[in-house]
Amino acid sequence: MKSSPLFTDLYELTMLYAYLENGKKEWASFELFVRELPKNRNYLVFSGLNDVVELIENLRFSKEDVDYLYSLNLFPNWFLDFLKEFEFTGKVYSMREGEVFFQNEPVLRVEAPIYEAQLLETAVMNQIHISSLIATKAARIFSVSRGRGLSDFSLRRTHGFDAGMKVARNSYLAGFNSTSNVLAGKVYGMPVVGTVAHSFIMSFESEEEAFRAFLKAFPEKAVLLIDTYDTVEGAKKAVKVSKEMGVKLRGVRLDSGNVVELSKEVRRILDGAGFTETKIIVSGGLDEYRIDEILKEGAPVDAFGVGTKFGTSADSPYIDFVYKLVEYDGKPVMKLSPGKRMYPGRKQVFRREGEDVVSLFDEKLKGEPLLEKVIENGKPVKKLPELKESREFFLRRFSELPDEIKDIHRKVEYPVHVSEKLKKLYKSLERELEEEEIEGAENNNN
Amino acid sequence: MKSSPLFTDLYELTMLYAYLENGKKEWASFELFVRELPKNRNYLVFSGLNDVVELIENLRFSKEDVDYLYSLNLFPNWFLDFLKEFEFTGKVYSMREGEVFFQNEPVLRVEAPIYEAQLLETAVMNQIHISSLIATKAARIFSVSRGRGLSDFSLRRTHGFDAGMKVARNSYLAGFNSTSNVLAGKVYGMPVVGTVAHSFIMSFESEEEAFRAFLKAFPEKAVLLIDTYDTVEGAKKAVKVSKEMGVKLRGVRLDSGNVVELSKEVRRILDGAGFTETKIIVSGGLDEYRIDEILKEGAPVDAFGVGTKFGTSADSPYIDFVYKLVEYDGKPVMKLSPGKRMYPGRKQVFRREGEDVVSLFDEKLKGEPLLEKVIENGKPVKKLPELKESREFFLRRFSELPDEIKDIHRKVEYPVHVSEKLKKLYKSLERELEEEEIEGAENNNN
Repeated sequence: MKSSPLFTDLYELTMLYAYLENGKKEWASFELFVRELPKNRNYLVFSGLNDVVELIENLRFSKEDVDYLYSLNLFPNWFLDFLKEFEFTGKVYSMREGEVFFQNEPVLRVEAPIYEAQLLETAVMNQIHISSLIATKAARIFSVSRGRGLSDFSLRRTHGFDAGMKVARNSYLAGFNSTSNVLAGKVYGMPVVGTVAHSFIMSFESEEEAFRAFLKAFPEKAVLLIDTYDTVEGAKKAVKVSKEMGVKLRGVRLDSGNVVELSKEVRRILDGAGFTETKIIVSGGLDEYRIDEILKEGAPVDAFGVGTKFGTSADSPYIDFVYKLVEYDGKPVMKLSPGKRMYPGRKQVFRREGEDVVSLFDEKLKGEPLLEKVIENGKPVKKLPELKESREFFLRRFSELPDEIKDIHRKVEYPVHVSEKLKKLYKSLERELEEEEIEGAENNNN
Repeated sequence: MKSSPLFTDLYELTMLYAYLENGKKEWASFELFVRELPKNRNYLVFSGLNDVVELIENLRFSKEDVDYLYSLNLFPNWFLDFLKEFEFTGKVYSMREGEVFFQNEPVLRVEAPIYEAQLLETAVMNQIHISSLIATKAARIFSVSRGRGLSDFSLRRTHGFDAGMKVARNSYLAGFNSTSNVLAGKVYGMPVVGTVAHSFIMSFESEEEAFRAFLKAFPEKAVLLIDTYDTVEGAKKAVKVSKEMGVKLRGVRLDSGNVVELSKEVRRILDGAGFTETKIIVSGGLDEYRIDEILKEGAPVDAFGVGTKFGTSADSPYIDFVYKLVEYDGKPVMKLSPGKRMYPGRKQVFRREGEDVVSLFDEKLKGEPLLEKVIENGKPVKKLPELKESREFFLRRFSELPDEIKDIHRKVEYPVHVSEKLKKLYKSLERELEEEEIEGAENNNN
């Protein structure tokens, strides 16, 4: 999807202008991070970097964009002329897509003249947010799936076109096997799956007739929906019609009712008829909590179609990412507001066995550094990994995560330490700011 | 945004093929409705029709689309050739954008050869869902705003590009005054607003210097953010700098802290300095619940910037719209599954004072019919209302709604009745289906 630089909050543009009007062109660094994980999340999965790189590369104001800004009667002509030539000239450091991350860890840093770095804020946040939100939800579902197949069935309830595409992509990134979204199959090269809806069954005189018609169309590939009228009777009819037509029944889908009991009964019917390879697929109102229950109760389900609650991350529909100024003109900065604590300066994250350390960027510590340069002079420094590679990377990272962190019910905090040097910098800046505040208050009382 | 017919669930395409393969080309009617309103909603606001009309008009399979489908190895060549020529030839009936609606009321109906009507399902649901979800959330916020200004500040946390645009549009549709989303301003002609971020304040040596710089850039239009260090001190500095520079301060923004106490203190400081026209704008973690509290406690807030919880409809991030076959080949149909009750046949909704009646489409009842034809032979029958007209329509409809239904805390069910003719049809179909079921079970026992 092609973006526009006007896909931003107006204040990014008013600030851009105010910086230039005041001659402020020094370099600044902004870091994207999460202060505190959402209530129901012990970890987050980073994603959306591909979109950020694309939007930075294509960041140009068209004539229509500038004409629109002119019509707002907010900006002088010299500034509008400046925008016509605008390009991003800075650097971006980032974690890899599929990386698992935690509180206070910078996942991405933009370094550029302050007005350029500021302009990126809204679009970068928007794109990283939706992809990481969904990759995280997908990972939670993957973590309870015990090897069963997982398909993204959420397209009808995702928040619009762009979310529909990103939900499909990030489901695959974080362990799902396929999507029902055909365009995602085309664009991302991921597997697509589909069965049949209740309306199809209902449009025929009888369920048997509907099964016959669908098996005729897809003799080797049909998954029959068997719960339109009565699931157990539906299973018997599916067997009967498949036998009559001499076709191998690939699968049956259950979309309602007590799926634990029904799947056991359906399995007995299928096995009893020699249909041992016919898969049972379950859909309808699923998320990690429900899938975990279903599998704990021993339901013989081969795959799940996961929809609405997954595609909207319904139990936690947003992540409080922030994009904060951490360095300006070579000097580390931070904010003191209560509840808005942050660490100053350009940072790195080192991953070791069972713990992470957040440090200053130029420290060399034990462990694997997670942030790497992806853009320099406004251009990508290398090709980003393909979706399949990122999926493999996620699977590896996720397998290294301790089991208690993957608990979907219990809040467990992963140990994220702060290096000695970063702690020292924080303390010294804190003192400085407190002294300034006292001075400020004294000056005001004068 | 240009859509693709592949933005759909694969099963819509497998059904399309199975219908054609079995010679089924009869006309069918599908209705879009909600069986039960979400837990926290007493009403819903219909929106997204403009997108549906656009996507239907542009529904064409490109050569690349067909090539991709060929690569799936699912469909024969005659079907792929058929898709190249595919166009929607049917009718669409719909409520108007901005209409308030309730449980079991069809908001939109597609009538076409069954394979065409089926193909639209996913994209129609996706687009109506996000727009109606957000229009509804906006209406709830509007309902507690007591005439205060409302701005959409949610762009950084909406679910992607498309949601970002639709959130802005539907905020305006349902009573908001403006958005921070510049592209929405350009595309929809709605007012845009913006102030300044904490990072701007922090990039200067002192808060006063930052205020001076921003007032220099926007002497008549500046809204200063005063909570970066200390809100009360910030208010004093904003007054001091404005006086020094001889400019009128348009507004101040508070984004943290106890905004009830702080806004009162800030109002005293502003009024004491003669800045009685300077507005107080509050943002940060707002939704209808919090805004209602803030105003109940008498906070002198002039406008609210509403972000994440609004733009993701966080307390209810999805609506269970369904798209159900109600008529096939001239005969009304319905499904019997427990908990999935629905009314058969093509329907109309009549609105009367304090109640709605759902009837068969050709009934003539007292009240105003809410569904009207918008597409015939695949083409729009008239121009849809502009956003501003739809906003006025919403405001009128919303003002007619009883106060108890607008209660944001208490669940109250609006009376939606079913006409006698529709009840009779339901009963007779129910009997028919039950008899078939008994017969089916008997046949299976043979």
